Amino acid sequence: MMNYESLFAATTPPAVERWQGFPEYNFIGGHNDPEQVPVDGFVAAAQRVLRARGRELATYHLDAGPLGDLALRRFVARKLSEHRGARTSPDDVLITSGSMQGIELVNEALLKPGDTVVTEFFSYQGVLNSLRRRGVKVVGVALDEHGLRTDKLAEALAELRRQGVSPKYVYTIPTIQNPTGTVLGRQRRRELLELSETYGVPVFEDECYADLLWEGEWPTSVLGLDDGAGRVVHVGSFSKCLAPALRLGYLVAPWEMLGRLLACKGDGGTGALEQMVTADFFEGHYREHARRLAGTLQRKARALAAALDEYFGTAAEYVLPHGGMFLWIRLPAGVDTRALLEPARAAGIAFNEGPAWCADPEDAANYMRLCFALPSEARIREGVAKLAEVFQRETGIPARSANVALS
Amino acid sequence: MMNYESLFAATTPPAVERWQGFPEYNFIGGHNDPEQVPVDGFVAAAQRVLRARGRELATYHLDAGPLGDLALRRFVARKLSEHRGARTSPDDVLITSGSMQGIELVNEALLKPGDTVVTEFFSYQGVLNSLRRRGVKVVGVALDEHGLRTDKLAEALAELRRQGVSPKYVYTIPTIQNPTGTVLGRQRRRELLELSETYGVPVFEDECYADLLWEGEWPTSVLGLDDGAGRVVHVGSFSKCLAPALRLGYLVAPWEMLGRLLACKGDGGTGALEQMVTADFFEGHYREHARRLAGTLQRKARALAAALDEYFGTAAEYVLPHGGMFLWIRLPAGVDTRALLEPARAAGIAFNEGPAWCADPEDAANYMRLCFALPSEARIREGVAKLAEVFQRETGIPARSANVALS
Repeated sequence: MMNYESLFAATTPPAVERWQGFPEYNFIGGHNDPEQVPVDGFVAAAQRVLRARGRELATYHLDAGPLGDLALRRFVARKLSEHRGARTSPDDVLITSGSMQGIELVNEALLKPGDTVVTEFFSYQGVLNSLRRRGVKVVGVALDEHGLRTDKLAEALAELRRQGVSPKYVYTIPTIQNPTGTVLGRQRRRELLELSETYGVPVFEDECYADLLWEGEWPTSVLGLDDGAGRVVHVGSFSKCLAPALRLGYLVAPWEMLGRLLACKGDGGTGALEQMVTADFFEGHYREHARRLAGTLQRKARALAAALDEYFGTAAEYVLPHGGMFLWIRLPAGVDTRALLEPARAAGIAFNEGPAWCADPEDAANYMRLCFALPSEARIREGVAKLAEVFQRETGIPARSANVALS
Repeated sequence: MMNYESLFAATTPPAVERWQGFPEYNFIGGHNDPEQVPVDGFVAAAQRVLRARGRELATYHLDAGPLGDLALRRFVARKLSEHRGARTSPDDVLITSGSMQGIELVNEALLKPGDTVVTEFFSYQGVLNSLRRRGVKVVGVALDEHGLRTDKLAEALAELRRQGVSPKYVYTIPTIQNPTGTVLGRQRRRELLELSETYGVPVFEDECYADLLWEGEWPTSVLGLDDGAGRVVHVGSFSKCLAPALRLGYLVAPWEMLGRLLACKGDGGTGALEQMVTADFFEGHYREHARRLAGTLQRKARALAAALDEYFGTAAEYVLPHGGMFLWIRLPAGVDTRALLEPARAAGIAFNEGPAWCADPEDAANYMRLCFALPSEARIREGVAKLAEVFQRETGIPARSANVALS
C-alpha cells in the first residue's frame, strides 16, 4: 500500500469522516423542504429544454460563454429588476456552482494573508471560515434588530483608516441576515453605500436567503440603491429558494470584476442541464414558488418557536425572523454550545454551535442556530424536546419545567 | 465607480476577454458532436429520476453524502469492473465537477511550490498549467507510438532519486493519450506499477478519453492491473463520452486519499440532477452509446486526416490514433504555432498550439492539436483548407501544392 499520508502537503486539512447518513433530527445545513421541490415543474422543464436545446450540451458553456446559460442570466437580471429594484443586464451576471463559489472567487481574486474584511458581528460560517483559512483579519460590526448598525460601521471604518488599513470589502447579508434573520432598513442601506463611497470599499451583498421573505414585498437590494454606481458585488443562490442539490448561484458585478473572477473560475463552467431546467421553471413560477415555499417555512418556524418555548422556556431567547429557514437562539451565559455538539449527536441531533457564526467566536459560545426547513413539524417538536433533555443533562439548563424562568 | 483594479491581489490572473461566440472553425476545447447527445435518452432519464427521486434535491448531497450520487458511483464502479478490469466499490468513487476538479483536488492536497511531478513529455494542458501555477517542477518522460516509455521513466526516477527528489506522482494518460492518441501496452502498464512500487510514487492515471476507443476491447486500466494494491489514483470523465456541459467526472482512490480530497472539496457537492440523469441513462446504454459515438468520431478523424493530407501534404505529420477526438500534428522544424494563433483567429479558426501540451514548451513549437468532434465533416475540410492558407501566408509552409514534399 502506498504511504499517502507522507505525500500530503502540510497545509492540507485533515480527512473528513466517512458519511454516516443524516442524523435523525437534522437542524443544520440549509437543506430545504422535500415536499416543496417542484417535481412536476422540473419534469416539464427538463423535457422542454432538452427537446429545444439538448444538443447544446455537446459544447462547454453551451453556446453562451463562461458567464453561464443566457436564459438563466436573463432570469436573474429580470428577478433583480422586478423584485429587487436593480437594473441589471445578463452580461453583469455570472452563474456559479452555488453562491459559495461566487464568494470564493471574490476571495481568491481580492485577498491575501494579512488583508482585512469587515463583516456583520454574527455572520455566515462559510464566509468566516474562508476568510480565516486565507489568513484574513475579520472585523465584526454589531447588529441590532434592524440588521447591521451603520453607525458602528462608520466607527469601524474610521478606526481602520486611522490604523492605515483599507478593508477589501464590507460583507453584508441585508435581507434575512444569516444567522440573525434581520432585514436591514432602507436608510441604513443608503448609509452603507455612502460609507462605501467615502472609504472606497466595495459592499459585498449576499442575498442568499432573500427569496425566502415570508410576508410583504422584497426590499430594494443594496445593488438596486447603488443604481449602477459599481460599488456593490451582489451574490445570490438557487439553493434556498429552489433546491440545494442543483448547485446553482449567481454573482452580479461590473465587468472589471467579472473578467478577473472568470480568470479564476477554472471549472469548465457550471452544470448546464441544471441551469437550463432552473431557468425554464422559474421563467413562469418564481414568485409563486417563492411565496408557497415561504408559507411552508413560516409554519415550520412557528412550530420550532413553539417547541422552544415549551421545552426550553425562557432559557432560549430568539426573535422570530422575517423569513428564511433558521432561528438564532441565545442561551444563558455560561452555556458553551460547542461542548453540547457531541452529546447532541449521540442523541441523533445535529445543530450549529454559535461560535462558528461569529466574527469573535468566544462571544457566541452561548448561541446556537437551528435550521427548520428539512424536518417535518412533528420531527422538529421531537428533536427540540430531545435537545432540551441533552442540554438539561449536560448543563442543568433548561430547568425541567418550561414555566420556570431561567434568565 | 469603485476602483476594483486597486483591490485585486497581485497574483490574480488578468481578466479574460469577453465572450465573442465560438469561432467559425472550432478545433479546440474538447467539445463533442452535437448530433450524438442522446436527447431522447436524457428526456426519458430525467422524467424517471425526477419522479422517483426528485424530492431528494432538497438536501445537499441528496441522501448520499459528499462522494456523490450513489447510483452514479455504482455505475462508475460497474464500468471499471466490466470494461477496465478494475474491481472497485462505489465507496472508492468520488464524483467531481469534471475530471479537472479531481485533478485540482489531488494537486491541492499533495503539492506545494518546489515539489516535482513526472508527466509524459507531451501531456494535457490543464494539468501542465495547474502544476506550473503551483510552482511545481515538471519532469517530462518520452513517449513513442506505444505511449509512455517506461525505460525512460525508470531512468528519470533513478536520476531524481540521485538528486534526492521524490516526485509526488507520475501522471499518465495511458489509453488515448492526450495529445498523442497512443495506447500504452499491457507490459508497460505493469512496468509502470513496478516503478511505482520501487520508488513509492503513486500513479495518477487519467482515463479522460478512454471511453472513446474506436475499435476493439478496452485495455485493462492501470488501476485494474494494480488489483487493489493502492498505488493508483484514477480519474475519468463524462465530458468526452457523453456531454461536457454536464460537468461530471470521477476520481477513484483509497479512502486514505479520498477523505483528504473531500476536506478540500468545498463546493457543497457536484450538480445532482446531472448525476442522476447520467446514471440512469448510462445504466442501460453505456457501451452502445460509447460505440456509436466512437464510430462518428472515427469518421470525423478520417475526414480531418484526408483534409490535412490534401491541404498540408507532407508538411503535416501525424499518426492516426486508436480513438479520441483530436489529432496531434507535427509541422516542419522552424514553424512556431504560437505565432499562428492570431492570424488563424482572424480567419475564424481556433487551434491548439503545441507548446501548451508539452512539459518543455519550446520543444513543441512546431506541433499543433486539432479537435474534430464538434465541426461537421464539411466544416473540418473547409477549416483545414483555410488553416493551410494561413500557414502558407505566414510561414511559406505548406507549399501551394500538396504534392510537393516539404520535410
